[in-house]
Amino acid sequence: MTIAKGYSASDAKAKLQPYSFERRAPRQDDVSIDIKYCGVCHSDIHQARDEWGGSIFPMVPGHEIAGIVTAVGSKVSKFKVGDHVGVGCFVDSCTKCATRNVDLEQYMPGLVQTYNGIEADGVTPTMGGYSDHIVVKEGYVLSIPENLPLDAAAPLLCAGITLFSPLKHWKAGPGKKVAIIGLGGLGHMGVKIAHAMGADVTVLSQSLSKQEDGLRFGAASYYATNDPKTFEVLQGQFDLIINTVGASIDWNGYLNLLKVDGTMTLVGVPDAVVPPVNPFVLIGSRRNLAGSMIGSIKETQEMLDFCGKHNIVADIEIIPIQAINEAYDRVVKSDVRYRFVIDMASLA
Amino acid sequence: MTIAKGYSASDAKAKLQPYSFERRAPRQDDVSIDIKYCGVCHSDIHQARDEWGGSIFPMVPGHEIAGIVTAVGSKVSKFKVGDHVGVGCFVDSCTKCATRNVDLEQYMPGLVQTYNGIEADGVTPTMGGYSDHIVVKEGYVLSIPENLPLDAAAPLLCAGITLFSPLKHWKAGPGKKVAIIGLGGLGHMGVKIAHAMGADVTVLSQSLSKQEDGLRFGAASYYATNDPKTFEVLQGQFDLIINTVGASIDWNGYLNLLKVDGTMTLVGVPDAVVPPVNPFVLIGSRRNLAGSMIGSIKETQEMLDFCGKHNIVADIEIIPIQAINEAYDRVVKSDVRYRFVIDMASLA
Repeated sequence: MTIAKGYSASDAKAKLQPYSFERRAPRQDDVSIDIKYCGVCHSDIHQARDEWGGSIFPMVPGHEIAGIVTAVGSKVSKFKVGDHVGVGCFVDSCTKCATRNVDLEQYMPGLVQTYNGIEADGVTPTMGGYSDHIVVKEGYVLSIPENLPLDAAAPLLCAGITLFSPLKHWKAGPGKKVAIIGLGGLGHMGVKIAHAMGADVTVLSQSLSKQEDGLRFGAASYYATNDPKTFEVLQGQFDLIINTVGASIDWNGYLNLLKVDGTMTLVGVPDAVVPPVNPFVLIGSRRNLAGSMIGSIKETQEMLDFCGKHNIVADIEIIPIQAINEAYDRVVKSDVRYRFVIDMASLA
Repeated sequence: MTIAKGYSASDAKAKLQPYSFERRAPRQDDVSIDIKYCGVCHSDIHQARDEWGGSIFPMVPGHEIAGIVTAVGSKVSKFKVGDHVGVGCFVDSCTKCATRNVDLEQYMPGLVQTYNGIEADGVTPTMGGYSDHIVVKEGYVLSIPENLPLDAAAPLLCAGITLFSPLKHWKAGPGKKVAIIGLGGLGHMGVKIAHAMGADVTVLSQSLSKQEDGLRFGAASYYATNDPKTFEVLQGQFDLIINTVGASIDWNGYLNLLKVDGTMTLVGVPDAVVPPVNPFVLIGSRRNLAGSMIGSIKETQEMLDFCGKHNIVADIEIIPIQAINEAYDRVVKSDVRYRFVIDMASLA
């Protein structure tokens, strides 16, 4: 057992404050990690503020963890001291389930979230990456390619895989037209990854204010959705649209931009009820509305290796952990380009 | 030019009445068909009553046409006098379109509906199958297998293909669990076809009143959706759900019955706004909500050949055309087992 230092929310209304808590003594199959950086995901805020219900307090958020291995258990074979590693949205899962074979454990019961979850023992709350170290089962630790800077690689563990998984599943690649709705933390990763996969990428953003960035990230086109003409000229153009925005937008206008057999995939959960889907929009062109959630451990490692090969990381703003509450307010206002990453050296 | 006898609606409020109109003289690539039977589709009623807007009056409805060839143009090679043939929901389409190659003409601009449409000349309204004969381009005439009775085969031309196409597209077959929502004209074809494809079929119907029929059609299981327990015990069970009902039901409860990567496909258009889709239901299990509309000519012929091989036809109630207005009222009340078919001999 060790004492970890971090920041926690004591309840849904509280600001995050310094907090000390216990981490388990490493077991034979555990990896001990010195956390160097942790990304700030919008879902950290939703959970810290209990906006989805069921939050467990006190809560140490953070599931975009990048760090360095400081110790390994006797049965650990994949990692050694000094390795660059990451931890994403979950630290355990059901291994009995038959569907484990198809590497979809993120969708199965028994998933243990990196924070705001309960360990497989049924009692111990999990504590996340806004802290100085973490102890994680080898099977849930990811290898971060050495050529990627740890700070900008941290957001790959959630934002990166959240976009990589649907882009791969719905076959983004050469000859495919892909649109990304929203150029925020998720969206900017989607543009970079879809472009690296060889797809023709369009950004659909509220205004053109981030157009220069979008094109730099790899988009071929950039359209403002506050211009009604966008929904005319792009009708029936896309094979795949990934909707990253947390705002309640009318999906029907976007579904109309899909080709026959096209798919729009939701990866951001709207914070309000969305308008009803118009069945004609789906039926008249055999379109699909789908959802996708992070990715499996195997796919997350594949994503990290892909990003290593293509030198893809997030565009980040580094903050000390003392600035976390201000950062939360800025995330809610979409005032970040494009992901806050906490430098954990600031905890010392 | 010939004079056809039929029944038409003169406006959205009118009852259907006897009506005579002109059919074009057959061209070199036309097939002349003596209409023996025509199925009564719910969309006939929606259009005759202008419930979807844009109806063209006077309207002779009917797009589940079964008959016998009486003459063929000089360039017709696929049909000869005496052949059993059918005509479905469209009688012409854009042939320039590149996507024609993938046999998805039903989703392309330029489709000419069998009735309530305008011919490619841009001016001539099309008139449907509630009539004694029709003249149709060879490419839009289907061959009905000789072993199928023409009366019960008529509904295959719309109800049959509307279910066959999504069942095939989403790979219903051995090892797949398929649910059909609604056991009406569409649903009962879905049960028969999905069963013949080798899938394990479940009917989800409001009550158990048609259970005996459902099992006879090939369903392995039958559940009442007015029993809340149905939505508990079937959670996460299905690879594919086809929603055939025209009523506004809450899709979320049904989406929850899909496995990870499962798809619910809409083929019936609700007559009222449906409740909003809950994004978590899609995101949390990578589920899909899709739509599908009839099928291509090539696929419709494939469906007819499949039904010929498996001896699949609709369960029908034969009516004289004089009973059409009463039949409409009964369709609206779902009081038909399972499809009305007009015996066109009653026109004489």
